[in-house]
Amino acid sequence: MGRVYNFCAGPAALPEEVLQEAQAELLDYKGSGMSILEHSHRGKEYDAVHQEAVSNLRKLMALPEEYAVLLLQGGASGQFAMVPMNLLGEGQVADYVNCGAWSTKAIKEARIVGRVNVAADTSKDIPTRMPDPATWKLTPGAAYVHICSNETIAGAQFREFPRTDAPLVADMSSDILSRPFDIRSFGLVYAGAQKNLGPAGLAVVVLRKDLAARASERVPIFFRYRTHLEENSLYNTPPCFAIYILALVTRWLLRQGGVDAIARRNREKAARLYAAIDGSGGFYRGAAVPEYRSDMNVVWRLPSEELEERFCKEASAAGLKSLKGHRSVGGIRASIYNAFPPAGVDALIEFMREFQRKNG
Amino acid sequence: MGRVYNFCAGPAALPEEVLQEAQAELLDYKGSGMSILEHSHRGKEYDAVHQEAVSNLRKLMALPEEYAVLLLQGGASGQFAMVPMNLLGEGQVADYVNCGAWSTKAIKEARIVGRVNVAADTSKDIPTRMPDPATWKLTPGAAYVHICSNETIAGAQFREFPRTDAPLVADMSSDILSRPFDIRSFGLVYAGAQKNLGPAGLAVVVLRKDLAARASERVPIFFRYRTHLEENSLYNTPPCFAIYILALVTRWLLRQGGVDAIARRNREKAARLYAAIDGSGGFYRGAAVPEYRSDMNVVWRLPSEELEERFCKEASAAGLKSLKGHRSVGGIRASIYNAFPPAGVDALIEFMREFQRKNG
Repeated sequence: MGRVYNFCAGPAALPEEVLQEAQAELLDYKGSGMSILEHSHRGKEYDAVHQEAVSNLRKLMALPEEYAVLLLQGGASGQFAMVPMNLLGEGQVADYVNCGAWSTKAIKEARIVGRVNVAADTSKDIPTRMPDPATWKLTPGAAYVHICSNETIAGAQFREFPRTDAPLVADMSSDILSRPFDIRSFGLVYAGAQKNLGPAGLAVVVLRKDLAARASERVPIFFRYRTHLEENSLYNTPPCFAIYILALVTRWLLRQGGVDAIARRNREKAARLYAAIDGSGGFYRGAAVPEYRSDMNVVWRLPSEELEERFCKEASAAGLKSLKGHRSVGGIRASIYNAFPPAGVDALIEFMREFQRKNG
Repeated sequence: MGRVYNFCAGPAALPEEVLQEAQAELLDYKGSGMSILEHSHRGKEYDAVHQEAVSNLRKLMALPEEYAVLLLQGGASGQFAMVPMNLLGEGQVADYVNCGAWSTKAIKEARIVGRVNVAADTSKDIPTRMPDPATWKLTPGAAYVHICSNETIAGAQFREFPRTDAPLVADMSSDILSRPFDIRSFGLVYAGAQKNLGPAGLAVVVLRKDLAARASERVPIFFRYRTHLEENSLYNTPPCFAIYILALVTRWLLRQGGVDAIARRNREKAARLYAAIDGSGGFYRGAAVPEYRSDMNVVWRLPSEELEERFCKEASAAGLKSLKGHRSVGGIRASIYNAFPPAGVDALIEFMREFQRKNG
């Protein structure tokens, strides 16, 4: 079988050029006679990779000097714990906006560390949606306000970010680098790499440097942001290969024209798919409220679960893989991150028309 | 340049066959039309990899039913924090044996979580050595006793492990799977993968299952062993690619005849190198007390730092890479883990003779 179209929500499709480059130099990285998997994290070859990954991220996100990039381990789930461990002081309250399964997990973890106020909750709404910032019940003097910018499972995405008095913290695992935003609205954003950045096993954290000073001396050294900030994410051996792929993916993204260019492509891909859903005369029904529809994870239903199952099975046989919605919501989910090619969206739309013709 | 001999202490040399296999299937994993980097961690392809890695480790370490394997992130440095977070209860004391730089780091982290007794300390001894278990001042009723089985920087290794009343916990980052040992002497062993197991970005933890119950409800969910035990290390997205390489490395090790066979090969490699050092008439001087010499990291000095520098430079030009000792102790260090080929040891010995002839 040739390369298929991979609609998986994460780990997800990587740019084919990136995979080819990694393959070509896997036994001998740049004539060094060693694999990048074997290079010391203190050597000059890996150091150049590490610096490039950070510098590409800074460029792509247009980070001002007062923000730092950390390359950590443990994915977003690790950050669910590290955020309150570092930012939620004794006696303080953290505001959490609950917009789905991932926010719910983040809240559960934060409650172990300290006091949480759920400022808004759309986690059980059908159709899925994000809570309108005008309705958030924020705590004066909160340690921070936490949101998830794109709920992968629900297929719902914030279109705009509010300015908050307390530092805004966002889990951007499934839409980081997919569209431009002003980091100055945020105190900290984090993302598991396995959707838009690279392979699993890496978490990217971008934070305003002064926030790293907050963690008390009772937080283990390894779980303090400032430990990794002070050592440029080389306090211990980093996940070198994942960072190497991150360097290649961000280099690829710069070649595509950066975040503005990829955002236009992402909007077009998603718009074509939503148009196919909306134009099906009700055979396909979008799961999210239109104003909060995600450009990254397009979720929709068919007239019956039986048809949904047949849809996934036949799509898979046609080389359109991993379209099954998350078990908690069902339906169909097409995850179309940065690296997902527009031709794959066209192939899916063609398949949808044909499937409806036969089953509609 | 062809493949060189990589004496790096970690990330370290991987078996060339493993790299070739990973390279061959990097764009299309087993005819799936996707890279293993792109496969869902919930899909059947990755699941088989995950199960194989665990099952190979169980075989190689001859684990009884009451022990579990966890595949985590954060390397050994993460475990320096997770061990006390999970095992050191309120009001308890943990005994730590300090035998070098890595134990010192583990102690520093444990002191943030709870009370620590340093039961023995050879961390500053020159020549380097391990503390004789007969001299350890253990605490009755201690939560656990922590050791580092092989100090990578010092080139010193425990030859035998004592039976302790409290669960024995060992950082085995640099000698796991290099020699047989009875896991029943231990409550928990852990290792960063980047020396004997695979690439950086993965920590392997083997623990007696009952110990996972110890963590209080105040430990963040993500940092509890039982969270990962209950989900077979699939609570969140694991570092899939590192685990894939772990599966290939452990499969390779089984093909070599398992741990007994590799231990014989490791002893022979190290013995040849120590014989070359001892037979140099004092030009080369081993850094560790002979009875604690490490089979994994062979550390020695030359008559002057200037000669040591020249040695490393000329060795590197001859394709013998990363022989510089750790900056904290100086000298020469040859890390010769499982995957390091015997021919590389012979090439080094030949180089040493020639170097002595010219400079001795």
